Amino acid sequence: MVRYKAIIAYDGTNFSGFQRQPNGRTVQAELEALLTRMADGQPIMIHGSGRTDAGVHALGQVIHFDFPYERSLERMRYALDTQSPEDIAVSSVEQVTEAFHARYLVVEKTYQFKVDIGKPRSPFRRHYASYYPYPLDLERIRQALPDLLGTHDFTSFCASGSSVDDKVRTIHEASMVVNEAGDQLTFTFRGDGFLYKMIRILVGTLLKIGNGRLAVDSIPGIIAGKDRNLAGPTAHPEGLYLAKVCYEADADN
Amino acid sequence: MVRYKAIIAYDGTNFSGFQRQPNGRTVQAELEALLTRMADGQPIMIHGSGRTDAGVHALGQVIHFDFPYERSLERMRYALDTQSPEDIAVSSVEQVTEAFHARYLVVEKTYQFKVDIGKPRSPFRRHYASYYPYPLDLERIRQALPDLLGTHDFTSFCASGSSVDDKVRTIHEASMVVNEAGDQLTFTFRGDGFLYKMIRILVGTLLKIGNGRLAVDSIPGIIAGKDRNLAGPTAHPEGLYLAKVCYEADADN
Repeated sequence: MVRYKAIIAYDGTNFSGFQRQPNGRTVQAELEALLTRMADGQPIMIHGSGRTDAGVHALGQVIHFDFPYERSLERMRYALDTQSPEDIAVSSVEQVTEAFHARYLVVEKTYQFKVDIGKPRSPFRRHYASYYPYPLDLERIRQALPDLLGTHDFTSFCASGSSVDDKVRTIHEASMVVNEAGDQLTFTFRGDGFLYKMIRILVGTLLKIGNGRLAVDSIPGIIAGKDRNLAGPTAHPEGLYLAKVCYEADADN
Repeated sequence: MVRYKAIIAYDGTNFSGFQRQPNGRTVQAELEALLTRMADGQPIMIHGSGRTDAGVHALGQVIHFDFPYERSLERMRYALDTQSPEDIAVSSVEQVTEAFHARYLVVEKTYQFKVDIGKPRSPFRRHYASYYPYPLDLERIRQALPDLLGTHDFTSFCASGSSVDDKVRTIHEASMVVNEAGDQLTFTFRGDGFLYKMIRILVGTLLKIGNGRLAVDSIPGIIAGKDRNLAGPTAHPEGLYLAKVCYEADADN
């Protein structure tokens, strides 16, 4: 068996998320079915850096899988890219040792979240950005963002029902840019890991701050309270992108 | 009856084009059905600046229609925007006199055409840019573009079967920009009017020049030959956007 690591992108619109499930089209099931065909019917399982929910996109999801034959990397990439459905792209494939694991060895993940703030809502972004039609003071959001940096217990920003015990995470970057036309925000969050729906709750909270319904300096108190009810609503999945996953060797990329 | 002019945008992916037809979902039929409901069942017909083909998008298509009641402009715009399907947006509505006609009085149209030149093809642009995976020398395209400017008989760039007799058109702008990432081209064509599939044939020809399979200086000869077979292939519809339509009073906008 040869272990391959691949970087993939997908448009999450028509997927019921990344992870295989009994019903619903998933990224994992599509790629496993393709790899199993490429391996002449030997069942191949893929491991992702983590799941993404229905409607959530990926620019740089990382997977690994063990394949019974050695293939040239570009031949493997091309086969996966062109034979997978058109809403999945395979950017790169490399051979790794059996020590590599796409989920266990993650040291840093970067997510982006896009918000359409134009009027009217762009028909071209309806699946690719969350829509926010209410007044926003972007300066308030810019002031609040640094309060997220550092190591905190992010219980207040974790969807209830999560089975994870340790909710301490470190955020290295929390930023926002506005596009030239002034009708789209892109948030970037980079950290050692994120809790279930954490990015979407962070964005929902920041938008509530921008809209004036939460104080500019409310984030430290929300974190300290360790109560999901203190934070803002969960932003819609269509704005969320898993942008990059880093492992020890390339964490400084 | 009150005549309204509206600027609309639509994602052409799931439409069989703009114009009403017996079978297939169209922009015209969706908006007419909505306006007819808003007029308590009195049939309302809309007129567009021109048709767009299946898969072709619009950023600034212009329509007009006669409505039996006077409505505040923002109320009319909001109703049309929010009650129409989510792949149609209504940017603005204004009241016009009966002298206005969305098709007959056009003095200038602007189209854009997007080409995805990244590897692999972006899953996010599969419906919003045509994919060109072959080598391109962009400098060759830049050199060829000015040969399209001015007043010419564009018979060679018109799809065969067009019933239009006069194929003389004037192109005021023919330009190309590359995005920052270097993986997408955007062509802009502005002129007094364009023939059936003309933009798509222009782009197909320019890409063939960029790829080296047509000479950099071949456009004058293609125009002079008045033969569709001399030009390049017809680029795919998903890259094409009707960007702007100007009328006499606002032609200098």
